[in-house]
Amino acid sequence: MGKPFGLAVKALVSDGQGRCLLIRRSAKCRNFQGKWDLPGGKADKGEDFVSTLDREVAEETGLRVSIEGVAGAAEYEMPAVRVAILFMEVRATSGQVKLSDEHDAFQWVPLADLTKMDLSDQVRPFLEKYTKSA
Amino acid sequence: MGKPFGLAVKALVSDGQGRCLLIRRSAKCRNFQGKWDLPGGKADKGEDFVSTLDREVAEETGLRVSIEGVAGAAEYEMPAVRVAILFMEVRATSGQVKLSDEHDAFQWVPLADLTKMDLSDQVRPFLEKYTKSA
Repeated sequence: MGKPFGLAVKALVSDGQGRCLLIRRSAKCRNFQGKWDLPGGKADKGEDFVSTLDREVAEETGLRVSIEGVAGAAEYEMPAVRVAILFMEVRATSGQVKLSDEHDAFQWVPLADLTKMDLSDQVRPFLEKYTKSA
Repeated sequence: MGKPFGLAVKALVSDGQGRCLLIRRSAKCRNFQGKWDLPGGKADKGEDFVSTLDREVAEETGLRVSIEGVAGAAEYEMPAVRVAILFMEVRATSGQVKLSDEHDAFQWVPLADLTKMDLSDQVRPFLEKYTKSA
């Protein structure tokens, strides 16, 4: 039967000039400290995925975004659950990047350079496939 | 800003012998009549994606399934909305296939033959990629 499955949504935030926003996980995070990540997170109970996306991106980056399209999906296994991660392409529509205490740096990275960064295991396999086919 | 986005979940139901379940859309369907499809459908408001998957597969095929993993995601544009489709690999755990009146035939199809079928536009682009990489 396997572990229960949850849903997470991650955002490929574009600046409209071929660069994507990465944020670095701070010492306050429970895992992947110091790794570069995409904004996003788990869906709350009863929350639709667009609300999850808007909420997590706003909490973690201060940006408002509009959805451009679906980038793909991946799976990540944690000790107690498995997570289906839906990756969405979004465009920043307003705001300056303002991090929460869960992240301590941000960087706009050209698509071709994304996988040169020290990425979190939750996003690396997907970004390797995505940037190859993009 | 674009049209609003909804979530749908589609199941690649495996029989454990390398074959995947396709069901044919009947004349009762509003669109894609006569086309072969994967079981699945739209998430109800407040419904998590695993419940959507279980409910739609049970309604459309009579089968109980367990989730094996994430197959990928795609996007489909309809007149009023865009739909993010999450494709999940599942295994049938019990039941005989029993169709609702939305479908009039079913077939267990080897993965390599899936794209030879007359597929619905909602699943064809994804299945072409998926069967190439599988």
